[in-house]
Amino acid sequence: MKRVVTLGEIMLRLSTPGFERFVQADSFDVCYGGGEANCCVSLSNYGLETRFVTKVPKNDIGQSAVNSLRRYGVDTNFIARGGDRLGIYFLETGASQRASTVIYDRAHAAIAEAKVDEFNWDEIFDGVDWFHFTGITPALSDDAAELTLAALKAAKAKNITVSVDLNYRKKLWSEAKAKEVMTGLMDYVDVCIGNEEDAEKVFGIKAADTDISKGEISHGAYEEVARQIIEKFGVKLVASTLRESYSASDNGWSAILFDGEKSYLSKKYELRIVDRVGGGDSFASGLIYGLVTEMPYQDALEFAVAASALKHTIPGDTNHVSKDEVLALAGGDGSGRVQR
Amino acid sequence: MKRVVTLGEIMLRLSTPGFERFVQADSFDVCYGGGEANCCVSLSNYGLETRFVTKVPKNDIGQSAVNSLRRYGVDTNFIARGGDRLGIYFLETGASQRASTVIYDRAHAAIAEAKVDEFNWDEIFDGVDWFHFTGITPALSDDAAELTLAALKAAKAKNITVSVDLNYRKKLWSEAKAKEVMTGLMDYVDVCIGNEEDAEKVFGIKAADTDISKGEISHGAYEEVARQIIEKFGVKLVASTLRESYSASDNGWSAILFDGEKSYLSKKYELRIVDRVGGGDSFASGLIYGLVTEMPYQDALEFAVAASALKHTIPGDTNHVSKDEVLALAGGDGSGRVQR
Amino acid sequence: MKRVVTLGEIMLRLSTPGFERFVQADSFDVCYGGGEANCCVSLSNYGLETRFVTKVPKNDIGQSAVNSLRRYGVDTNFIARGGDRLGIYFLETGASQRASTVIYDRAHAAIAEAKVDEFNWDEIFDGVDWFHFTGITPALSDDAAELTLAALKAAKAKNITVSVDLNYRKKLWSEAKAKEVMTGLMDYVDVCIGNEEDAEKVFGIKAADTDISKGEISHGAYEEVARQIIEKFGVKLVASTLRESYSASDNGWSAILFDGEKSYLSKKYELRIVDRVGGGDSFASGLIYGLVTEMPYQDALEFAVAASALKHTIPGDTNHVSKDEVLALAGGDGSGRVQR
Amino acid sequence: MKRVVTLGEIMLRLSTPGFERFVQADSFDVCYGGGEANCCVSLSNYGLETRFVTKVPKNDIGQSAVNSLRRYGVDTNFIARGGDRLGIYFLETGASQRASTVIYDRAHAAIAEAKVDEFNWDEIFDGVDWFHFTGITPALSDDAAELTLAALKAAKAKNITVSVDLNYRKKLWSEAKAKEVMTGLMDYVDVCIGNEEDAEKVFGIKAADTDISKGEISHGAYEEVARQIIEKFGVKLVASTLRESYSASDNGWSAILFDGEKSYLSKKYELRIVDRVGGGDSFASGLIYGLVTEMPYQDALEFAVAASALKHTIPGDTNHVSKDEVLALAGGDGSGRVQR
Amino acid sequence: MKRVVTLGEIMLRLSTPGFERFVQADSFDVCYGGGEANCCVSLSNYGLETRFVTKVPKNDIGQSAVNSLRRYGVDTNFIARGGDRLGIYFLETGASQRASTVIYDRAHAAIAEAKVDEFNWDEIFDGVDWFHFTGITPALSDDAAELTLAALKAAKAKNITVSVDLNYRKKLWSEAKAKEVMTGLMDYVDVCIGNEEDAEKVFGIKAADTDISKGEISHGAYEEVARQIIEKFGVKLVASTLRESYSASDNGWSAILFDGEKSYLSKKYELRIVDRVGGGDSFASGLIYGLVTEMPYQDALEFAVAASALKHTIPGDTNHVSKDEVLALAGGDGSGRVQR
Amino acid sequence: MKRVVTLGEIMLRLSTPGFERFVQADSFDVCYGGGEANCCVSLSNYGLETRFVTKVPKNDIGQSAVNSLRRYGVDTNFIARGGDRLGIYFLETGASQRASTVIYDRAHAAIAEAKVDEFNWDEIFDGVDWFHFTGITPALSDDAAELTLAALKAAKAKNITVSVDLNYRKKLWSEAKAKEVMTGLMDYVDVCIGNEEDAEKVFGIKAADTDISKGEISHGAYEEVARQIIEKFGVKLVASTLRESYSASDNGWSAILFDGEKSYLSKKYELRIVDRVGGGDSFASGLIYGLVTEMPYQDALEFAVAASALKHTIPGDTNHVSKDEVLALAGGDGSGRVQR
Repeated sequence: MKRVVTLGEIMLRLSTPGFERFVQADSFDVCYGGGEANCCVSLSNYGLETRFVTKVPKNDIGQSAVNSLRRYGVDTNFIARGGDRLGIYFLETGASQRASTVIYDRAHAAIAEAKVDEFNWDEIFDGVDWFHFTGITPALSDDAAELTLAALKAAKAKNITVSVDLNYRKKLWSEAKAKEVMTGLMDYVDVCIGNEEDAEKVFGIKAADTDISKGEISHGAYEEVARQIIEKFGVKLVASTLRESYSASDNGWSAILFDGEKSYLSKKYELRIVDRVGGGDSFASGLIYGLVTEMPYQDALEFAVAASALKHTIPGDTNHVSKDEVLALAGGDGSGRVQR
Repeated sequence: MKRVVTLGEIMLRLSTPGFERFVQADSFDVCYGGGEANCCVSLSNYGLETRFVTKVPKNDIGQSAVNSLRRYGVDTNFIARGGDRLGIYFLETGASQRASTVIYDRAHAAIAEAKVDEFNWDEIFDGVDWFHFTGITPALSDDAAELTLAALKAAKAKNITVSVDLNYRKKLWSEAKAKEVMTGLMDYVDVCIGNEEDAEKVFGIKAADTDISKGEISHGAYEEVARQIIEKFGVKLVASTLRESYSASDNGWSAILFDGEKSYLSKKYELRIVDRVGGGDSFASGLIYGLVTEMPYQDALEFAVAASALKHTIPGDTNHVSKDEVLALAGGDGSGRVQR
Repeated sequence: MKRVVTLGEIMLRLSTPGFERFVQADSFDVCYGGGEANCCVSLSNYGLETRFVTKVPKNDIGQSAVNSLRRYGVDTNFIARGGDRLGIYFLETGASQRASTVIYDRAHAAIAEAKVDEFNWDEIFDGVDWFHFTGITPALSDDAAELTLAALKAAKAKNITVSVDLNYRKKLWSEAKAKEVMTGLMDYVDVCIGNEEDAEKVFGIKAADTDISKGEISHGAYEEVARQIIEKFGVKLVASTLRESYSASDNGWSAILFDGEKSYLSKKYELRIVDRVGGGDSFASGLIYGLVTEMPYQDALEFAVAASALKHTIPGDTNHVSKDEVLALAGGDGSGRVQR
Repeated sequence: MKRVVTLGEIMLRLSTPGFERFVQADSFDVCYGGGEANCCVSLSNYGLETRFVTKVPKNDIGQSAVNSLRRYGVDTNFIARGGDRLGIYFLETGASQRASTVIYDRAHAAIAEAKVDEFNWDEIFDGVDWFHFTGITPALSDDAAELTLAALKAAKAKNITVSVDLNYRKKLWSEAKAKEVMTGLMDYVDVCIGNEEDAEKVFGIKAADTDISKGEISHGAYEEVARQIIEKFGVKLVASTLRESYSASDNGWSAILFDGEKSYLSKKYELRIVDRVGGGDSFASGLIYGLVTEMPYQDALEFAVAASALKHTIPGDTNHVSKDEVLALAGGDGSGRVQR
Repeated sequence: MKRVVTLGEIMLRLSTPGFERFVQADSFDVCYGGGEANCCVSLSNYGLETRFVTKVPKNDIGQSAVNSLRRYGVDTNFIARGGDRLGIYFLETGASQRASTVIYDRAHAAIAEAKVDEFNWDEIFDGVDWFHFTGITPALSDDAAELTLAALKAAKAKNITVSVDLNYRKKLWSEAKAKEVMTGLMDYVDVCIGNEEDAEKVFGIKAADTDISKGEISHGAYEEVARQIIEKFGVKLVASTLRESYSASDNGWSAILFDGEKSYLSKKYELRIVDRVGGGDSFASGLIYGLVTEMPYQDALEFAVAASALKHTIPGDTNHVSKDEVLALAGGDGSGRVQR
Repeated sequence: MKRVVTLGEIMLRLSTPGFERFVQADSFDVCYGGGEANCCVSLSNYGLETRFVTKVPKNDIGQSAVNSLRRYGVDTNFIARGGDRLGIYFLETGASQRASTVIYDRAHAAIAEAKVDEFNWDEIFDGVDWFHFTGITPALSDDAAELTLAALKAAKAKNITVSVDLNYRKKLWSEAKAKEVMTGLMDYVDVCIGNEEDAEKVFGIKAADTDISKGEISHGAYEEVARQIIEKFGVKLVASTLRESYSASDNGWSAILFDGEKSYLSKKYELRIVDRVGGGDSFASGLIYGLVTEMPYQDALEFAVAASALKHTIPGDTNHVSKDEVLALAGGDGSGRVQR
């Protein structure tokens, strides 16, 4: 069985019930998530062995975060304990013309203040096939960036395939800082996931004559961006979801993969959205699953985009779908007939 | 006032809240339902006198099932008590490309092990106008099939009109067994409800050049199927819903009725689905209502399809709409303007 | 900062959870609202100073209504206490072809039996820029109509701009009574909000060759109606929302404003509806905000229609959106991308 | 099987969840109840045939009240439909030193405005053994008092045993009015339930040297009161619960019955209270059950007090316990060991 | 770190919210539990390595049961998959004089039909220090009894300490059958947990002149029973909780341990009960923890009884307390002051 | 009407439902509270004018905290906006031997980093009669201590009466730091609330021969402590609650007040606890109410202890009781009889 490790932050997510706004809420629904943690849960649901590396405080909130991963089969034995707090994010779910809103309260989280020597990467990567991280982790703090670099070096020393999801977050760092740090990390990356906006904000890479603010989908432009990423950093594959945001309730959803020579385009799904948080992570984990199990590129891409289409119908950060469910949708059954 | 009797299983339904998957749920919403029970509640809501016949265990779960029927006016005085358990089904409600999923835990239910002599059909059918059952009841067990046959004989002896909803369930019996048993029961049937898939699976009847797996709606093909059913079993009417499953959230919904000479087509509704379980039962009960109150065929069909369109907007198995609400929709008011 | 006063009823709203029908409900969600109260909350959310005038009973249900206003910054110091009860309305939220249903239980409410001398309009209107009421208030009772007239006279004496939302409610009064009372009040009105149906039912004003029951949107017809209102009553502006009710789940939403010379048409939004109650009030408060802060007419109209588009996505009677959120949507961002 | 009829009001009960106060509540738990309705449900739970007579409005709130009775087997066929509204009461549940609080909103209820000729007492009382009412019903209005009198006359004409629970409610009528009306009704009563406070407030009957405001339990004083009631009105039995209110969470609970010659005292239970509303009604229905099934007086009293002890542990107005559960407790098993 | 294995059934528990009775419930709270599973979770919470052995169906209900164990750190890798269903039990929580009630629906559960060859005990017991089972497991079926015996033989072959909790369940087997089967299993047992009732029902062992139905606590009588168990079966230790059931809300709680020579008595706690299900299991797991970590007998007993006192305050089957919390209570801090 | 100002932190409180432990929770109940904010709400509920001074972040979580105060009538116009976050605390409610547990996540809260010049004390204290703070506020940070001192100087300059609740929190500062800072603030204090533990930890003041860890109540010892506080700091009154923690469910509750000459002892209440958080704040606000409205000392003390007894029955941080309810309990009515 293939083994995947991810490194990142897991946060307490507090979301208002139904479509309530924050100022209306008298209770919050609780779950725990974060880009890399979400990938572990999803890959564990597909049947892989996964291990999540982070640091959480020594209290029952930290323990609850760990438990949320164990519940779905993620190995949590290398999670460090200590620090001041677990990062939190507040979510209200939008609808129609009203966007979902996130308020972050993640400063001073344990993982942001973790040190390199708290983790034994040699043990962590023992027998591991794939390592995944996102651009959020090094953005958390200089310590976290250093920790990411250490992990990447250790991964490469063991010939582990490395993927990154660029995930630029403007509230965490400036474009300049992101470029500086991420450029240094890209040397270790084999598979790069990131949309046009990420590429421009993080690396200043963009297609000629494109205005990303318009939200139009251009396969050609994306291929140009992907080609530049491959040329600049020597990665093997570049992939991106292609989200068409009609409204907070309805999106078009497809994806593209470029291997340096050829672009692979997925089917497009018309989504009725239940919870779009974690949509990108479910794509990343779907793609990792496809690639680590050696599906052909087109199949891996279709698996990834079908997996993430399903994620949009599931409340919470994480994607609770089986491999068979994803394959059924990728194979064409999106009719939604009751499964008895 | 017209009187209708149905015979079948009533189950405890345990559904996850919102769009949660089973593995996420910390509570289940509770209701009680089953094809024939659902018809009784719906017909009672239209103002008819209804009586439901089943067997439930002598405990508070069984009693709760009975209470769920009494609450809406169904006569439960002929429900037998005893046996080991009430059947259960678990439901998670899908959305968009993710289908709703049902896990059945209905083996060894009291009704599946009930004996013919536990029911006094002479009393049960006293003053009754219509008897309805579905293909699920005889599929439960040989005892249940025998019970169904006894009921049909008693109904016919009193000149009660009989309807069946074929409802083929592959987890309950094989196509061969279904064909054998159902063929024996069809002699007593006046009105047969069933879609193309049911007809093929249960009777091996299909239209030439049709592939039901494609999900396309062909009125002509259905008429051909209906004609064969009439010819083979001598029933008077054959009807079917015509569901177009765009996704778990959106369906097209219409129906067709064939009287041996002419096909009646209903209006088609574009549905936003809240809960599609019981959709077929709400069509059956709508049709029974129309026919037993002697509406013209077209009106009865429009009543049935409008009734079941409304069911898709109501949580739970049963259809809580009044006759006036159905008539208003059938009459053209689907604008959804607030009723003040 | 601009100051707005409204006068009207605030009711206890009891709504079934999810899409449950009344007969299914074991709990009700609680909020407090009413046309004029909703306007105050919304205007307070935009940053204005608002004051709501009503009467509530001296018990904790009345106090809870007051608290629901204070919570969002409305000045409640001029609310009278006494009388027998707070009006109640029951709501079940529809979907697809099933309309939302309201059951009113508002007779004998404290405000319906309040007397003119319970309110000191001189203090209430001190430093106030705008007074708003709806056709519901004078419809409550003869006392309430007298109270409304007293408020209007006091407002005019202070040169306060006055707006009315016609809001004809057939369960509260006849067309004849409405015409008689409302005609007497229109002398004091500067801005009249009302759709074609209101205009016809209250004033007998309609466009030639128009049948409002068809639900078609005709800008020309509405302009004709608006022109008649202006000519008859000397108001300065007439406005109306233009709702296209495709179903209880989906509506088209736009608006029109006529200043006696020119018609202004807003953008049109395609709405996925969470809760449409209070949609008209959110339009009225948006328009008042635009006008009282002296936006150009087109901008004020766009603000109003964007504000009310957002309201349809928020549970409860009141519109919890900020000025910036409305401006962002009016400015074109309805993509629903997550706001991080 | 014995048949019991009761006449009275059924109200919508809206209670705050947990121990929330009204001003904190964002939802209300919903049930339907009232003294006489509660008795019917309880007696139905013991296996008797029961019939509840009232009037409810022709809307889904009225229907829900009816359904709440049907659910537990009460015959609702003689409930009149019409009028303006269903009475409502709001409840917050106290604890420790904080008492439960009730806000009534019951004026103008359909039953308060019902007329004598809306009920066919000849049919209602066909085959009936017992008729029960409380002092609340005639207190609702003059119409309701007249209706009560008509019912009593009809009951007596059929030799039906009649019981009353005095239940003085100071918000509904004055002591003088109560005395006048109730005195006229007592001629028809066989069994009178009422505590010392009721006796004093309604009839001016009290024991010498007793101060009911102290809350002390004196069997001797109660016997003196009971004797006066028997002497004055010729009833056969007088009974009362003896509540010792230590706090809102803990009560002592016993009862006394006087047959004109001898006082019967029950065991005393120390109660941990979940919901004490309906406690008196559960005593009345327990006593009626004991008497109508011809238990010896001591047994009937023990049944009644055990039944009502159990009611205090059940949320809602009505007592959902079986005859066997009551007998087990009356027989001595109050250990609370898990019943597996 | 010490390793403990348990074998048994894990069931879906469906409990009514608050103090609702089954016939009132519209939702069930969901958790998963069973005697031996509960012990694993509790021991895992104390920091031990635990492994639970059972069989669950290959569906999402079975998976949810597994997840509920993984969530708290239990090794679930040796759980077999297959069979028809997961056992279910329904629970309503009592209060005061009303006992909690359990309805079992556990027949045909996967574990009851599991075969010996589905488990590799050699791997399961690798490096294990303690094996625990209860009398429920062999009572499930002959297959389950055979499976238990196989486990015991394998445990003994590896010199693993074995404990049993007798837990006689009259609905699962007769006293005769229990005696026959359990006697055969006792040869492998080192530590026997069971109260007087268990000892009498399973082995016919009782103290002279004692009537267990009275519920009185007699240390001397229990010692006599324990001595007989030791003499008959050669076990090293016998222990029992001593529950004084004042009511469903309040219990006295202590325990006794006998080592063949001396009786150890614990402190006694006066409990306010939140959820007493799993109380015995929390005692067993506390005792196992104390013994496997080589506490002196008195300390181990105090740990066990303090642990189980805390369990009574926690909803669900399982005991979520840390070692430190138990030690603090055993050490005397039961004041309930807020831990900040 | 009297006016009271308080200064302090308001936090987001996230509590598990029912008696769930943190590791079980899938939702949190939301309220907002903090010692000084709780006092404002309570005093506002008694009818005083109150003003709360703090700083909250400019986001909807901060706004929700403000709204929670406005809802109950607190003036929030002087709350500063800005900073990084709102402090959070997590709460699980204990029962019986299991204590409630609080996890604080309050570092870096906006108020902890607020500067003196963000508040205009001259305006804040305009027309104010009383200023209250607790020892928590200066413990938050050096900035907060400086802010507290500035407020005290401004208050004294306007001859405003000042009260403090010592409230030592060991997680916020050391005893040494507390002593240093608090000693400097005591010069401005008129009324000092604090128990023996506070006095010892903050000032090193204790009675001879007393061991506070035993939890015994000694009026004499407390008088000795109070006398020392008065002598050392020149305050006029010293008061303390006297909590007897039998368990997390049951407490004895009384209080003592010393005026330098005489000790006043209150009645003692036996409490069944619903939510004890905020119990001390409800005592402080009750005492302030009594003193600011010039009740005699004994009456003020009885008011305070009755008020706080009631608080223990109300979920959330704040005390929602009216003046009349407190007076009724202080006057002797703790019987918990239903208030109809």
